[in-house]
Amino acid sequence: MSQAEFPTARLAAPVFGEPYLLTPGPLTTSRATKEAMLRDWGSWDADFNQVTAEIRRELLAMAGVSDDSYACVPLQGSGTFAVEAALATAIPRDGKALVLMNGAYGKRAAQILDYLGRTHIDLDKGDYLPPQPEEVDQLLRDNPDVTTVFLVHCETSSGILNPLAEIATTVKAHGKTLVVDAMSSFGAVPLTVDQVPFDVMVSSANKCIEGIPGFGFVIVRREVLEASKGRAHSLSLDLYEQWAYMEKTGQWRFTPPTHSVVAFRAALQQHAAEGGVAGRLARYTRNRDRLVAGMRELGFETLLEDRWLSPIITTFFSPDHPNFDFKRFYAELKQRQFVIYPGKLTIAESFRIGCIGQIDEAVVAQLLRAIADSLAAMGVDRCKPAA
Amino acid sequence: MSQAEFPTARLAAPVFGEPYLLTPGPLTTSRATKEAMLRDWGSWDADFNQVTAEIRRELLAMAGVSDDSYACVPLQGSGTFAVEAALATAIPRDGKALVLMNGAYGKRAAQILDYLGRTHIDLDKGDYLPPQPEEVDQLLRDNPDVTTVFLVHCETSSGILNPLAEIATTVKAHGKTLVVDAMSSFGAVPLTVDQVPFDVMVSSANKCIEGIPGFGFVIVRREVLEASKGRAHSLSLDLYEQWAYMEKTGQWRFTPPTHSVVAFRAALQQHAAEGGVAGRLARYTRNRDRLVAGMRELGFETLLEDRWLSPIITTFFSPDHPNFDFKRFYAELKQRQFVIYPGKLTIAESFRIGCIGQIDEAVVAQLLRAIADSLAAMGVDRCKPAA
Repeated sequence: MSQAEFPTARLAAPVFGEPYLLTPGPLTTSRATKEAMLRDWGSWDADFNQVTAEIRRELLAMAGVSDDSYACVPLQGSGTFAVEAALATAIPRDGKALVLMNGAYGKRAAQILDYLGRTHIDLDKGDYLPPQPEEVDQLLRDNPDVTTVFLVHCETSSGILNPLAEIATTVKAHGKTLVVDAMSSFGAVPLTVDQVPFDVMVSSANKCIEGIPGFGFVIVRREVLEASKGRAHSLSLDLYEQWAYMEKTGQWRFTPPTHSVVAFRAALQQHAAEGGVAGRLARYTRNRDRLVAGMRELGFETLLEDRWLSPIITTFFSPDHPNFDFKRFYAELKQRQFVIYPGKLTIAESFRIGCIGQIDEAVVAQLLRAIADSLAAMGVDRCKPAA
Repeated sequence: MSQAEFPTARLAAPVFGEPYLLTPGPLTTSRATKEAMLRDWGSWDADFNQVTAEIRRELLAMAGVSDDSYACVPLQGSGTFAVEAALATAIPRDGKALVLMNGAYGKRAAQILDYLGRTHIDLDKGDYLPPQPEEVDQLLRDNPDVTTVFLVHCETSSGILNPLAEIATTVKAHGKTLVVDAMSSFGAVPLTVDQVPFDVMVSSANKCIEGIPGFGFVIVRREVLEASKGRAHSLSLDLYEQWAYMEKTGQWRFTPPTHSVVAFRAALQQHAAEGGVAGRLARYTRNRDRLVAGMRELGFETLLEDRWLSPIITTFFSPDHPNFDFKRFYAELKQRQFVIYPGKLTIAESFRIGCIGQIDEAVVAQLLRAIADSLAAMGVDRCKPAA
């Protein structure tokens, strides 16, 4: 291959021979982000409160919020904790949700609602088909008692980028509350209140903003938040109280993941330096384009048509070759310094490769060479999936 | 002062001129613990699963568990998240709890039970008086429908070390389930199943084991855990499902705070190198003894009699001097590289100083000099509390 096909890596390589994480997060973060964790912070101290205030402000700005109509509430735990808190906040106890699902994270929302004892109806599109605005419209016509609609923006089960803006318009035309799980898209796919009239949006530290896992955050219309006072099922996950306490004291209600919070501030600064959401989208898109083109050259096929491919993660069918075995493939790639992700399809054997984190086209080019080498080592000489 | 009174610091000083955190956690951690966070880990990868398995094993060993009668279940979020999960696990939906309280953390448990809709009676001893075994015995006689007793081991509101072993014996004599919040004691105060017949014990990463905040953990009698299947009020805080998934896959159910987990392994290795619980207790006890003696020399008085003083954190009365102001005192000490903690008493003005984290007698001696200098700067020439 020519030099042009293997551009020089612009990002610092991980140290200690650690692998690149080509997964939907936790992902490969920058050295500067990790080094921000080399000091301890008092969670009660004003210096730390300033960090918290800064990240809340920056996240609201990223969502296009310019007034106090929305609040940003960070919450300890994984992204799922924040999704659970958001659903418990957004849906009245006697409310009814419409859950749009085409993968694991839509299903998980429905499971949360079962724990919460909230009534819900589901539109289950299976492994990867997108819910369509017309279907949502019809369901809302048929079920006028629905109060709240839930949609996953990028469903990492398949890697599909769902038609959020169109569905948001439909939901708002019916006057319903919209909850968006933007876990794996926020920070890299534009998602602002002027374009997508959401009521509640959930994401987490260790996705496209390239922070360290430890907390999620919810951007929520203030009147929705205020109406939820006393509604929570859990002290720890009570988003209203988390917000009220933070507003009053500047502190987190319970011990925050201080190091993860400070690393997130560093990650936000790097995000801005890269050109914000647009800059990050451009890099991730280049990663995906290089990945998909290279994989197709190797004979692999993507699960999705091009128009549904997200710049976050891509699903490829496993080759229908007797020598192909995912565990072996994973191990071969890990030896070559790349960690990929297993598939989650029920219809066919597959695997996933992420485009997010501190990777660029040079890393993707290295990955493609590692994949070719791994296939050769396994004796896989063709990559077509089963017909 | 002589050299003997200011021994040479044996622990590495914090970098960047950062203050020592003399708080109940997050606390000052070692450089080695923080440096463990300088790489990224795939949360699905076998290497990370090994770290998780190792810390679960070590924590069980620290609790004196040598068979499979108990399980260790780590949970994302702050310690309070783990307490909530533990209470929801330990108390049947139609059960009834006796909450022993003498400070904020006992009160918080009662608040959690209100969220969970669990019936409870409370023994509230106020700001700092210890619940006595005889009182617990009488309450259990009078309320035979109580299923579960909750006690905070070290109540950091005052710094008291409650009489856990005696109360545990009483609770067991009545055949009740015992839930211990050992958040700020486990790892430094001996707490093993042969000495304290607990059913459920909760602690977190960033206390006496000197890790980074990001998760808590529950050590729970396996039959209590198994009986709780389907009982949880929350998907995220479902301890049974967290355990079952971890047993089955080796992975955390939802994204773990990978860096905090790996830092915790480093912290556990240092804990063992220091001589385990006994070694840590010895250092913290020396810290406390030096602190209390030095503060008394300066004229301060402790809230508690010596026999109730924990080696974790100590409450001192604020001086009854017109020039003493806690905010100013805090700022003066912070300038001198020490962060202390405000008081939580309703009866009198007070403040707290922690003895835990990467500090030793030399640091305490520096602190005492900084306190003397701060008082001088404020013009406080006597430290007696109000009569």
